[in-house]
Amino acid sequence: MSPVITLTTDFGNMDAYVAAMKGVILSINPSVTIVDICHSIEPQNIAQAALMLNSASSYFPPGSIHIAVVDPGVGSKRRAVILETPRGLFLAPDNGILSYVIEGFLSEGISAQNKPCQKELPSGLRAIVLTNPRYWRSPVSSTFHGRNIFAPVAAHLSLDMPPTEFGEETNSLLTFPIPHPMFTSEGGLVGHIIYIDHFGNLITDIKDQDLPKEDISIDVSSHRIHGLSSSYARGEGLLALIGSSSNLEIAMKNGNAARLLRAHMGDEVKIIKKRPKS
Amino acid sequence: MSPVITLTTDFGNMDAYVAAMKGVILSINPSVTIVDICHSIEPQNIAQAALMLNSASSYFPPGSIHIAVVDPGVGSKRRAVILETPRGLFLAPDNGILSYVIEGFLSEGISAQNKPCQKELPSGLRAIVLTNPRYWRSPVSSTFHGRNIFAPVAAHLSLDMPPTEFGEETNSLLTFPIPHPMFTSEGGLVGHIIYIDHFGNLITDIKDQDLPKEDISIDVSSHRIHGLSSSYARGEGLLALIGSSSNLEIAMKNGNAARLLRAHMGDEVKIIKKRPKS
Amino acid sequence: MSPVITLTTDFGNMDAYVAAMKGVILSINPSVTIVDICHSIEPQNIAQAALMLNSASSYFPPGSIHIAVVDPGVGSKRRAVILETPRGLFLAPDNGILSYVIEGFLSEGISAQNKPCQKELPSGLRAIVLTNPRYWRSPVSSTFHGRNIFAPVAAHLSLDMPPTEFGEETNSLLTFPIPHPMFTSEGGLVGHIIYIDHFGNLITDIKDQDLPKEDISIDVSSHRIHGLSSSYARGEGLLALIGSSSNLEIAMKNGNAARLLRAHMGDEVKIIKKRPKS
Repeated sequence: MSPVITLTTDFGNMDAYVAAMKGVILSINPSVTIVDICHSIEPQNIAQAALMLNSASSYFPPGSIHIAVVDPGVGSKRRAVILETPRGLFLAPDNGILSYVIEGFLSEGISAQNKPCQKELPSGLRAIVLTNPRYWRSPVSSTFHGRNIFAPVAAHLSLDMPPTEFGEETNSLLTFPIPHPMFTSEGGLVGHIIYIDHFGNLITDIKDQDLPKEDISIDVSSHRIHGLSSSYARGEGLLALIGSSSNLEIAMKNGNAARLLRAHMGDEVKIIKKRPKS
Repeated sequence: MSPVITLTTDFGNMDAYVAAMKGVILSINPSVTIVDICHSIEPQNIAQAALMLNSASSYFPPGSIHIAVVDPGVGSKRRAVILETPRGLFLAPDNGILSYVIEGFLSEGISAQNKPCQKELPSGLRAIVLTNPRYWRSPVSSTFHGRNIFAPVAAHLSLDMPPTEFGEETNSLLTFPIPHPMFTSEGGLVGHIIYIDHFGNLITDIKDQDLPKEDISIDVSSHRIHGLSSSYARGEGLLALIGSSSNLEIAMKNGNAARLLRAHMGDEVKIIKKRPKS
Repeated sequence: MSPVITLTTDFGNMDAYVAAMKGVILSINPSVTIVDICHSIEPQNIAQAALMLNSASSYFPPGSIHIAVVDPGVGSKRRAVILETPRGLFLAPDNGILSYVIEGFLSEGISAQNKPCQKELPSGLRAIVLTNPRYWRSPVSSTFHGRNIFAPVAAHLSLDMPPTEFGEETNSLLTFPIPHPMFTSEGGLVGHIIYIDHFGNLITDIKDQDLPKEDISIDVSSHRIHGLSSSYARGEGLLALIGSSSNLEIAMKNGNAARLLRAHMGDEVKIIKKRPKS
């Protein structure tokens, strides 16, 4: 059974860059299944891609090959790598886009303002730097490694070629520092909006299991929400609930919370234990 | 031969929700063919999705499995169902999104303002309420049944598991009342715009076979169009023609009729028999 | 091995027209691989589609079947054709959309303002006019040949039916006159912006091999750029480089050159040999 190759890029849907990558892949392995994760990453927003790649890839069959190309440094000395993990292979520039995959699952937020730094890989992961040009599509354009390097390497990986065939092992990759929500002295929590989806739902870096079990209030953008709803349908107006990634989420019933609150990525979200009497 | 699974949602193309569903499906049946019908349904617009689902699904091979997820009631008591029809299986929340499939083909318009109500299924159709959690992806998120219920059930259906394996039969589903175009005492017709496409073409609920055979005029948004054109290329300026769904359509040659007329879904379109002498 | 069918249209992602074509194709050949090249062609912009079709199709396996439907003349007497080339089959209206494929690779610009004219095919290419209705999906809508003619013909071609089965040979097709960059008396070059991508990069019709080897300056939209950068990452601010199609490209480091320069398709780009002392 031929594995799945997924694609995550900032190429958008207006141009044919994604199609060029698919053509290159299918020219090498015509029976592979290619799935788009997302091509609407904000141009050059590595942090956004890092989050989405980790979250979406977790639903794919083990052994899938995930290509992620948000690559402002293409043509510079930044490395290109294969990351081997128990749930599949990741092919990407070594620019922090694999931070969340390395850190584990969707438990934390990262900021694009921060600089990524070299980080030793946790045990169970292995990375290969792509140094062997044999499987690249030549001539290699200095502006489009997605088409000339990542796509043909992924296609050959999908034909069961071992990752070590494509380059040399490394034990560290660039990753972003990932801030964790902070516990306050009153037993509350301060987290952040780490993602705003198409519905205007605000996804935070606060995990289900970190929320206090008693009554809570949630402060976001000068609004206070009392308690959690069990679903979008079971609340009224602005509501808070545990979303599909097990993170605290702010939503607006039949509306758009981001627009209502003029909320942005990175905004603080405060959890206050016990509802204050006012 | 593995069947086709299609997806119709209001998830947009900015997030990875669609990709998560595909990953879940391919984890269960790696050889299924997945086709996107549309993910640009206006958020929570069940009526729009209902129309598109019925129209597009009619071009797919019999036996295809069509998942439709426009689901503002996710997490509430709304039922999730499989509808068996001669042309394939439909998997959706029971919220009216199957109205057009149940009513037959693209002959009529529905309005999102109307409330759907329980309707007994016509003969030849059978529905199963999804009550058996065995094939769901657990834990089931209360906000994303597309990923946790519809996707894995569709994948198992594509492996030839019988629909009755997933729940219990029901003989009625929620459907929208579907208004029909009205014949006037002068032998004319009053219909409505039921869809506006990307080109700005206005698709009405008036079917080819219901149009008077003699000369007609068409009134829409304070404009009068005389007669029908045989194609977009054969008219001038604002024109009326029979579109690709056999419905009366208003178009603007090399332009955008919706923008020109400031037309909206639901606007009236009047057919007047015989061209008046003015 | 079943070949690939690609789709290039101006249908957008809001409607289900593309899905209808895929349904028709899969009903005839369920094992074909369908790949979207692009559906965001500006409505009726044949020149834009012509460029993208040629560029993207060059990355697909030989034998692929490329459907291109930007078709303002649908329903008129314009012909529909199969073009056989060494790199695959092209199925399209005969309206100039195959100009670049016929002319060869991405070396030149065409303007939508120009009228296409009949052009004899170069040797090695063969064209068939679709005149045999046997494989069409009936009734044939006068507004959607993509679904009723191109999709079923492509699906049958993918089952190895010979092109001559679908109609009669012709030795000429409509093509746009393709302007070439002009050499100036000072040994410079005057070319044009032929494409602006999603990142705001300006792709010109000036090929790598036509650029003077010595120091050059590039004038575009009242800005002067000195010399070429080797990659997006290796320049500063506004920069010029050889892009992924081997054409001269103007880009803005970590920004959007089109927005900065208010540049448009068709704008002149001048290459001046040797940097002038100022």
